[in-house]
Amino acid sequence: MRTILVAGAGKSSIYLIQYLLSHAPRNKWKVIVADGSAEAISEKINDSPYAEKAVIDITNRAQREPLVQQADIVVSLMPPHLHIELAKDCLKFKKNLITSSYISPEMKEMDAAVKEAGLMFMCEMGLDPGIDHMTANQIIHSIQRVAAVITSFKSYCGGLVAPESDDNPWHYKFSWNPRNIVTAGKGGAKYLLNGKEVDVPYEKIFDNNKKIKVEGLGSLAYYPNRDSMRYLDLYDVPDIKTFLRATLRHPSFCKGWQAVVNLGLTDEQDRIDASGFSYAKWLKGKTAYGNGVTLQEHVAKTLNMEQGEKLVQMLDNLGLFCEDELKDLKAATSADVLLNILLAKWEMKPTDRDMVVMQHEVEYLHKGKKINLTSAMVLKGENREHSAMAKTVGLPMGILARMVLNNKIVPPKGVLIPNQPSVYKPVLTELQHHGIGFTETVE
Amino acid sequence: MRTILVAGAGKSSIYLIQYLLSHAPRNKWKVIVADGSAEAISEKINDSPYAEKAVIDITNRAQREPLVQQADIVVSLMPPHLHIELAKDCLKFKKNLITSSYISPEMKEMDAAVKEAGLMFMCEMGLDPGIDHMTANQIIHSIQRVAAVITSFKSYCGGLVAPESDDNPWHYKFSWNPRNIVTAGKGGAKYLLNGKEVDVPYEKIFDNNKKIKVEGLGSLAYYPNRDSMRYLDLYDVPDIKTFLRATLRHPSFCKGWQAVVNLGLTDEQDRIDASGFSYAKWLKGKTAYGNGVTLQEHVAKTLNMEQGEKLVQMLDNLGLFCEDELKDLKAATSADVLLNILLAKWEMKPTDRDMVVMQHEVEYLHKGKKINLTSAMVLKGENREHSAMAKTVGLPMGILARMVLNNKIVPPKGVLIPNQPSVYKPVLTELQHHGIGFTETVE
Repeated sequence: MRTILVAGAGKSSIYLIQYLLSHAPRNKWKVIVADGSAEAISEKINDSPYAEKAVIDITNRAQREPLVQQADIVVSLMPPHLHIELAKDCLKFKKNLITSSYISPEMKEMDAAVKEAGLMFMCEMGLDPGIDHMTANQIIHSIQRVAAVITSFKSYCGGLVAPESDDNPWHYKFSWNPRNIVTAGKGGAKYLLNGKEVDVPYEKIFDNNKKIKVEGLGSLAYYPNRDSMRYLDLYDVPDIKTFLRATLRHPSFCKGWQAVVNLGLTDEQDRIDASGFSYAKWLKGKTAYGNGVTLQEHVAKTLNMEQGEKLVQMLDNLGLFCEDELKDLKAATSADVLLNILLAKWEMKPTDRDMVVMQHEVEYLHKGKKINLTSAMVLKGENREHSAMAKTVGLPMGILARMVLNNKIVPPKGVLIPNQPSVYKPVLTELQHHGIGFTETVE
Repeated sequence: MRTILVAGAGKSSIYLIQYLLSHAPRNKWKVIVADGSAEAISEKINDSPYAEKAVIDITNRAQREPLVQQADIVVSLMPPHLHIELAKDCLKFKKNLITSSYISPEMKEMDAAVKEAGLMFMCEMGLDPGIDHMTANQIIHSIQRVAAVITSFKSYCGGLVAPESDDNPWHYKFSWNPRNIVTAGKGGAKYLLNGKEVDVPYEKIFDNNKKIKVEGLGSLAYYPNRDSMRYLDLYDVPDIKTFLRATLRHPSFCKGWQAVVNLGLTDEQDRIDASGFSYAKWLKGKTAYGNGVTLQEHVAKTLNMEQGEKLVQMLDNLGLFCEDELKDLKAATSADVLLNILLAKWEMKPTDRDMVVMQHEVEYLHKGKKINLTSAMVLKGENREHSAMAKTVGLPMGILARMVLNNKIVPPKGVLIPNQPSVYKPVLTELQHHGIGFTETVE
């Protein structure tokens, strides 16, 4: 009998947990699911006799440590800042760890100690980061095998709403952590373009009308995603000329969100005055509104953007011009106010479908010929609970956990991302068997 | 407001119905689901305000006709012999029809009248037949476009149990109509091999140890599926040398099932004597058992097969050597007895996953070079209710219905299978977005 500890039973956990439980009977596994909410756990484990509920405060070491100690492998779906505590436990008790979060500086510092202990801490093992790393490296390695030279690599990914469930002018609904939308791009972004590093400050990130075409969907806009430069070494393409990781959104979303940023509505530093609060009052305060014009006219002028009118309609759709006083405001900053508005406006209905889109665009030279390769994956969810996001984030972790426990993958050592053929090959094959596959076209 | 009539709310209908309902709000559709069981309908429509229950006896014309009359398109999941009545209604009221069943001779006879009426009766629009036709024709047309000559086309498909849910020595569980398993191959099979037509009688169909390799799964056995010859024209490959459509099973299944056939246990003509009935008595009767040896020894000798011992264990697993008297036997023929046994033994548990495998293997000559192309799809279900079988059978019909209603596909006229690029191209792209995609390898 071996034991898997899954830390966190939130939105993204259902496919991961059900995948592990579907393999539990033959393998005689026990799957411990730890979360603060008994209800969240029950929804995911469905009375399986192979699951064990652990309703604990995961930030409490005394409650957490005994679970790590009895596990053979730990899969963490906790918010990024909580991974590090779990990671320390894993090092202490010598357990392999899998997470879907970006490697934090603190996590990176553990690399030598993790290697020394002969352990695998596999990070960035979800969708993006995760499936993007695996498929990107598979493509890069297959091109390098035929001695071709890769000149450009662009990788796009977005968690969107499926067209059939798209019923708001922002063309967006939440399929994952809503706060990440409000804070997206705050750290700025870096990427490589024609041999030069481009540094984009937060204020400019969404100010981009560039689009890509996706087969069967049409055009999507994109904005650069964090620091692409740190992947040049991890992807083993140090001499490449263009290298970009980017996030996909509906073109209207990027325009609208740039306006939201310009108006200062994502500010996490300001303090909201709750007395006599209304959205209109908030917006007036943020835009130095004077009398004489309507707030709409003022905002349109402030934005000074080509599509001012359409943008004002999009802001109106969020209720930002509403004068009604809101009592009992539970928001400290503009970002909090905005998040509360969006939580109500962009919530998926139970029968709504989300849609995950990932596309890699690669240019390379082979025997003097320039070749363009596109590899794309579009996946729609079944409904809010069984989202494409939960499936694509959760299954890579579940598959790796299974394959490590069953000795199908020899776990590589250290604090890693999944760029090793020994990891991505079997994991990508199994992902295909769960409906997560890519279509390649070559020109 | 337009109306879709779905006739039949059985096992294979859940993805079809939920697909149509997910598109209903934006399109202002009403989806009428007709079935004899109110419960079956309710399970599938999930209280959607866009669905309408029609609890009717579908064989009753007076109940059926008004529903057909008010529909803009009809999708039939009825058993094959009931399609024809619905098809007559559709012709009478001039409605397009989509089904997943093989074109019957009666249906084929309607072709001229259907064309004359300007209607589309799209048959064989499920998995197999269905997705096989679409992907096969896509491959064939793409090869023909580069003026290559196709010499061999083999297409394999099986509805299997996923390895993680496989816990019986037959390595099989029911993901679709169980009676079809008991009667599989009864009509014999025909295919083309090296330019010669091969005619396989029922008694020999499973007596075949040939296997194919499927990436990530290993070896599967196959047996020829019905009359492949009738697709030579429909696939537009009249000069091909080898042409085979085949069904995939676990190698042990084919060996075991050949034994079941050899023992006469699938007989639909005999009459069972219910007095003092036991499985052992039945087996003794079918195998002319005399005293002196155990029934197991007798059966092993009767089978005279290489793996006699293993086969006897497989039969033992079905309880065929059990002497316990069974009262209240509700079975008229051996096939009925066998079906009852298998229904209990091979039922999926609610959390079991099924697995659909399809693989095309094509040989063609291009500029003097012989090329082998393999295109494969492996898809695991989520659980018994959300099976890969229901998904792959139902979605092609749902997608075609949507695209015809939304004028994305101009419906071709006549009694057809989906071999037209105008149909298979958009349908296959949308199937990919629902996780049903193929991986091609070329050697």
